[in-house]
Amino acid sequence: MVTIRDVAAKAEVSVATVSRVINNKGHVTAQTVSKVFSVIEELGYKPNAVARSLTSRKSNTVALLVPTISNPFFPELARGVEDLAHSYGFNIFLCNTDDDRNKVTNYLDSLRDRYVDGVIINSLNLANEDLEQLHSRGIPAVTLDRTFSTHKFSSLTVKHREGAQLATQHLIDIGCKRIGLIRGPEDDSTAVQRMWGYRNCVKEFDWFDQSWIAPGDFSVRSGYLCMKELFQRHPDIDGVFASNDSMAIGLLKAAYEWGRKVPDDLAIVGFDGIEMSQYTIPPTSTVKQPIYEMGMKAMEELIRLMKEPNAEFSKKELDVELILRESSMR
Amino acid sequence: MVTIRDVAAKAEVSVATVSRVINNKGHVTAQTVSKVFSVIEELGYKPNAVARSLTSRKSNTVALLVPTISNPFFPELARGVEDLAHSYGFNIFLCNTDDDRNKVTNYLDSLRDRYVDGVIINSLNLANEDLEQLHSRGIPAVTLDRTFSTHKFSSLTVKHREGAQLATQHLIDIGCKRIGLIRGPEDDSTAVQRMWGYRNCVKEFDWFDQSWIAPGDFSVRSGYLCMKELFQRHPDIDGVFASNDSMAIGLLKAAYEWGRKVPDDLAIVGFDGIEMSQYTIPPTSTVKQPIYEMGMKAMEELIRLMKEPNAEFSKKELDVELILRESSMR
Repeated sequence: MVTIRDVAAKAEVSVATVSRVINNKGHVTAQTVSKVFSVIEELGYKPNAVARSLTSRKSNTVALLVPTISNPFFPELARGVEDLAHSYGFNIFLCNTDDDRNKVTNYLDSLRDRYVDGVIINSLNLANEDLEQLHSRGIPAVTLDRTFSTHKFSSLTVKHREGAQLATQHLIDIGCKRIGLIRGPEDDSTAVQRMWGYRNCVKEFDWFDQSWIAPGDFSVRSGYLCMKELFQRHPDIDGVFASNDSMAIGLLKAAYEWGRKVPDDLAIVGFDGIEMSQYTIPPTSTVKQPIYEMGMKAMEELIRLMKEPNAEFSKKELDVELILRESSMR
Repeated sequence: MVTIRDVAAKAEVSVATVSRVINNKGHVTAQTVSKVFSVIEELGYKPNAVARSLTSRKSNTVALLVPTISNPFFPELARGVEDLAHSYGFNIFLCNTDDDRNKVTNYLDSLRDRYVDGVIINSLNLANEDLEQLHSRGIPAVTLDRTFSTHKFSSLTVKHREGAQLATQHLIDIGCKRIGLIRGPEDDSTAVQRMWGYRNCVKEFDWFDQSWIAPGDFSVRSGYLCMKELFQRHPDIDGVFASNDSMAIGLLKAAYEWGRKVPDDLAIVGFDGIEMSQYTIPPTSTVKQPIYEMGMKAMEELIRLMKEPNAEFSKKELDVELILRESSMR
């Protein structure tokens, strides 16, 4: 059988150079690439192995696609992915997609061309064909907070609806009579699930209608603007579930400007459990997702898929926890 | 003269395939790569051009290395880089280095191997040889907030020391008698410059000594812990310059727990001008850096260097601005 040493000897280069050419990695001149491939062909050195190795797992690079790092949730998630990845010697390329369809496609094309070893994706605008393409190139993928019918990848999500119910029920339990919702983007499935959790708890009340739901976009600024809208529309509002912690920060600012005391006049619960929720004035009650752990688990699963290409894909749903702080302590 | 069409015809592949092989991009089988390189050699198709194009600017990918996206300053900076980059059709790979020497080196190695078109780097742990290596591979670089003796790259920075002086002088002007500093990491040149700005303003006062400077690390949590330390050591403190806005957020929390009214008992000025500084309670005065513009300008400069490989490198220093808000309005 022809070995890599035979190729190196015949091409008059080192074994390391042959390896670099085969793995499409490192600095090799065009002439050397040409020479090595000629020898490979001449000697008939396992052509399938070569073809396979062109897309083999040798880059030690993994990509993490997120909608936006401006929401502190994603930097905290990235931290979990990175800490585990670095301990295994992987670099992480972070890609900010803004959940824009074109950007998602461009990033995935670029990542495939650069032979990354695996991809972790959190995007609303991920299509089934994106995952199929990654799969056909032998690049394993783990999706976060998205579920698809195909089974060619693993996914991790958390109990968004249940969390929203915990938050809203808690506001009812402490005596709130008029509870508003600042929701996330309409096309975001996590935002939709959190809205249904809220609706489940309040739909039977006489006072409830759509006007108690303000359309945020998960940004601090939108939390601020939505809260002002709710104050104007419903001066009697005495509780709010903000469907993420960033919006709760903006909401607190609006309450401060409006002269409403938190929690006495207005009780607030957020969602996510980002570090910043401890540092607001007053500190914000929140539905805590295991953010860091989710990042770690996603990377752990990706490593499993990289090691055993024929491994079964897994679908996991993680628990959330209601953390009570001053913003809802009456 | 031999053209790419001659190579394509002889190798019995399309011009696009030859281009993919030359540019080391896209999906091509090992056999095709071998064939194309054989023909290139056989026909003597500009071998230098081929060698050059192996590292040529065709990936439409640029990398941005930052210490940590957990500090909102960097996501805002990345936003400026990305908006301009996307308008030119570039993807951005974000790399979180934690300013760890090994991670910086690993990322730069990985980026060179993947033929990125250019790199924008904000890192304390960047060595001259890193930049030399990028330069020798024809990968232009722009550094942010770092200056080196070599001239093989462009750099952008802001007036950190002047900004810190504006902040501290403002605290003196509004009547603060005992002004502390929460500084950034000792090995961070921006933190050091901001410390010198503060020292320049307070060094002549009788009360001033080292004990008025608390060692933060630019995180929210360190701002909180440092402020508690300063309260314990100097109960008469009535003004603080936090050398970034994230630490000012933690500081506000400590003041709230300690029962000190901001700004009446304690006036606060931060640094950076991140969006969140508007949403604190009360809103935080800050020395605003042109964060988004800096990201845009860095990308603009990188594009200039990519277009004209022999262009002169540039060194720019941007102005800062003191923004007065409630935290220092007496």
